[in-house]
Amino acid sequence: MQRTHFEEAACSVARTLNLIGEWWTPLILRDIFYGVRRFDALREHLGISRKVLTNRLGVLVEHEIVKKVLYQENPKRYEYQLTERGQELFPVIVTLMNWGDKWLADGAGSPVVLLDRETGQPIQPKLVAADSGREITYEGVTVELGNEKYAAAWEQLQQARAISNRKM
Amino acid sequence: MQRTHFEEAACSVARTLNLIGEWWTPLILRDIFYGVRRFDALREHLGISRKVLTNRLGVLVEHEIVKKVLYQENPKRYEYQLTERGQELFPVIVTLMNWGDKWLADGAGSPVVLLDRETGQPIQPKLVAADSGREITYEGVTVELGNEKYAAAWEQLQQARAISNRKM
Repeated sequence: MQRTHFEEAACSVARTLNLIGEWWTPLILRDIFYGVRRFDALREHLGISRKVLTNRLGVLVEHEIVKKVLYQENPKRYEYQLTERGQELFPVIVTLMNWGDKWLADGAGSPVVLLDRETGQPIQPKLVAADSGREITYEGVTVELGNEKYAAAWEQLQQARAISNRKM
Repeated sequence: MQRTHFEEAACSVARTLNLIGEWWTPLILRDIFYGVRRFDALREHLGISRKVLTNRLGVLVEHEIVKKVLYQENPKRYEYQLTERGQELFPVIVTLMNWGDKWLADGAGSPVVLLDRETGQPIQPKLVAADSGREITYEGVTVELGNEKYAAAWEQLQQARAISNRKM
């Protein structure tokens, strides 16, 4: 029920989570990014039930994050490929992975490393501003209203921030 | 129950989701990034129950993503501040937001825009390789085993990938 509420939220984080925030979905996307694209391979590798996997893939297809592509005629078999929209979720998976590599390491380092496909060199991800090339950090960024349509939601946020800055 | 299974998974995406993948948690972090730091302000702005918010904040404190800081003595009142570990989740929130801004816009553009705090200029986020400065894309990246400890999990992934490449 809360999902419906958030689907129209004045926030792209909430909207995106509404699609990919379900527990299994980012792991399904991770596997597809890794090249695991067939139903049975996904099911076995994730240790997920047929029902849940069918459901989550259905949502991803419905929202055009992945597409079903026939790879065998008889019997008909499909694999799941990322659309452009889906491919562009890669930075979300990479930033999740990078944070876990740093903060949830168990003394054995990164389970998986990313390599530049062309040079073969390991990649250390860094989020920067496209224009300036400067790293995007919590301390270095502020926010403002993007569009007047969301002025009411913005005002609510300002009130919540104001409460948090009130001296007692 | 599945959480326990994934906590020890050979994957930093799964480990990270285990902490912050709960539906509300990324939105709580978003609000704290926005400067909404007090319990009542969070509760009201998120429209979340006292019980769920207490629970989710407790997990974040336990895992040192946020810390409770006393801001009033009598009665005692606390606010929630991001630790360094928590601040470094900012790129995850930004990449979620950026994708939603692009792909889930409703014709009214971005609800919220990010600004460089120093220059006041809008920021367009871009994930790059720290060394080369080249953009990290799905097409441009490949993966390999990061540590021998995870060789068994890596082998399972190779099998799942192989199934997906098998010609029928």
